[in-house]
Amino acid sequence: MATDPLPIAQDLIRCASVTPADEGAIAVLERALEPLGFQCTRLRFGEVENLFAIRRSGGNGPHLCFAGHTDVVPPGEGWTHPPFAAEVEDGTLYGRGAVDMKGGVAAFVAAAADVVADGTAEKGTLSFLITGDEEGVAVDGTTRVLDWMAENHLVPDMCLVGEPTSKERLGDTIKIGRRGSFSAEFTIHGIQGHVAYPERADNPVHRLARVLYRLTEKPLDSGTEWFQASTLQVTTVDVGNPTNNIVPAKAFARLNIRFNPTHTAVSLEAWIRGILAEEAPRHDASFSCSGEAFLTEPGPFVDALRRAVQASTGEEGKLDTGGGTSDARFITRLCPVAELGAVGTTMHKVDERTPVEELRRLSSLYGAVIRECLG
Amino acid sequence: MATDPLPIAQDLIRCASVTPADEGAIAVLERALEPLGFQCTRLRFGEVENLFAIRRSGGNGPHLCFAGHTDVVPPGEGWTHPPFAAEVEDGTLYGRGAVDMKGGVAAFVAAAADVVADGTAEKGTLSFLITGDEEGVAVDGTTRVLDWMAENHLVPDMCLVGEPTSKERLGDTIKIGRRGSFSAEFTIHGIQGHVAYPERADNPVHRLARVLYRLTEKPLDSGTEWFQASTLQVTTVDVGNPTNNIVPAKAFARLNIRFNPTHTAVSLEAWIRGILAEEAPRHDASFSCSGEAFLTEPGPFVDALRRAVQASTGEEGKLDTGGGTSDARFITRLCPVAELGAVGTTMHKVDERTPVEELRRLSSLYGAVIRECLG
Repeated sequence: MATDPLPIAQDLIRCASVTPADEGAIAVLERALEPLGFQCTRLRFGEVENLFAIRRSGGNGPHLCFAGHTDVVPPGEGWTHPPFAAEVEDGTLYGRGAVDMKGGVAAFVAAAADVVADGTAEKGTLSFLITGDEEGVAVDGTTRVLDWMAENHLVPDMCLVGEPTSKERLGDTIKIGRRGSFSAEFTIHGIQGHVAYPERADNPVHRLARVLYRLTEKPLDSGTEWFQASTLQVTTVDVGNPTNNIVPAKAFARLNIRFNPTHTAVSLEAWIRGILAEEAPRHDASFSCSGEAFLTEPGPFVDALRRAVQASTGEEGKLDTGGGTSDARFITRLCPVAELGAVGTTMHKVDERTPVEELRRLSSLYGAVIRECLG
Repeated sequence: MATDPLPIAQDLIRCASVTPADEGAIAVLERALEPLGFQCTRLRFGEVENLFAIRRSGGNGPHLCFAGHTDVVPPGEGWTHPPFAAEVEDGTLYGRGAVDMKGGVAAFVAAAADVVADGTAEKGTLSFLITGDEEGVAVDGTTRVLDWMAENHLVPDMCLVGEPTSKERLGDTIKIGRRGSFSAEFTIHGIQGHVAYPERADNPVHRLARVLYRLTEKPLDSGTEWFQASTLQVTTVDVGNPTNNIVPAKAFARLNIRFNPTHTAVSLEAWIRGILAEEAPRHDASFSCSGEAFLTEPGPFVDALRRAVQASTGEEGKLDTGGGTSDARFITRLCPVAELGAVGTTMHKVDERTPVEELRRLSSLYGAVIRECLG
């Protein structure tokens, strides 16, 4: 009989682990995993509690890692059920993290219990990479655990991230990549002067207009087989000149680019620097990248996930690369990684919730994933 | 023997007539002009004292009007001589208005006294259009006196504005036109959204960039025989969006255009409205014009001025249309108008001043102008 993920999910939700707080969430997992034969290692980096748990079998079977997080975003106001009470009403579990992603973590733990019980777990190695810093700055979380795993020769063969990727029905979407996110801001310097004598001034707003026109006049690319086209959005331009007879001394702009793997942070910075150099040689610019684009090309791992989805849910398991960023952007440097999880409709919202039945179906799905990957 | 403009200039400067205050300045002129046979009419509009003074002769000779103002800009701090004391030191007269343009008004009054004395005044009609609202909003000043003059059939044949037009040496420059000044401001509306899903948003900054690019990509014109090219300066762009993952809802810009007579306020507004309609249909825009461009084509009046300049000063009297705006922009609808006056170097500055000798040379120059125009 299948293990019920509900009590585990409730135990997790009742820890008010608003990022980066832990509030006992990692301990809930330790208590659940150790009896199943997992060797648990607490990894505290800075203020963040992380957990690496591994269960080896005797053989040389593959190593599947499940990556997730126990931190949640702040609840906000206006809940109909207390956000950390994990109440079930009319078959629905309410609470911050029910979807993103304490529910997913609980479902995978329950699935692990099932495959330990039926012996499937002996075909390979299972591990959990759990962080308390996914919703925050993501500095002392997954990246540092990955470093530790690499140092300790614990690199998995494949990794499943339990983010709520399903759009309308459980299993309808598998994420095999994510766009990168790149930001730039620059101040263009001109020469202040009187509008009646512009020959003595150098208008930085005109230079800014040319820079922004060139940055936005055509698409960055036309997309790839797996990715939509990259997009650039200028989020602000500011001068703050109150007087209409003065050419201002400087003009500021900030922008964000969501990019597919046809670009990198390095290529984007070079492109912007080139336009700035041509249109506005006197400038200060700074650039930052919170995650490169990544793609796990369809192959044995992705095929296994789709087979599990189709067998367990009857859904197609459409491969997708949309949406924001996740910790998968870090894991991609270690092994093939994909994301598969609950329907994300209520994530980050007030009254985040999941039907209990769907939570159980997610656990079955994860069980099917383990069987396909270790089989 | 020539009448000395110095005491008249000193009497005027000692009235602290910071726009729109009068402080007795108009009365100084009445006291000087009435003994010369001028009929003085005080014209008070709103808070502004204005004066129209006219001296008719028996014949049908031409009517030359001298236009000037007795208001001054605020003195500011840091003067070496009190700004309203009209002190003379080492042959230099110090005081707010010494150049712009109580000195010019005094010089013309002295010149009038001379031509009354020598009988030249009998060849035509002389008048003074003096306002106390040139440095301010210019609403209750020259425009309203011009309306009154038109109603009372007192339209001159030509008008000389005594603004300090000379650049380095007295008489080196005669202004026969001025560029117009036109302002626009607009808010472009978009649809706010998340930068990761720009297909659900409509970025007003991108629309703004296209509008500004089109407004600034090429010169408005290449200038005319008498005018430099018109210029457009964007003075500010503002969004004020602090977050780099949000596409903002709106973007604001303001600009000013200094334009020659190949444009009008109407044509400029139509041009900008056309670009806004194409690039940013959802917008609020407002437009204002503080003065149309004007030109007094060279002809008998301008020729007379140049002859007077060359005879009196030995300078060329270069025809020019540069600089900001003056009340000549209003007078142009009544009669040919040009501007000729002192060296403007210290106007509006601390320690505004003129050599007394130059003030007297300006009076001689104005005497020559009257003789050429009435002759």
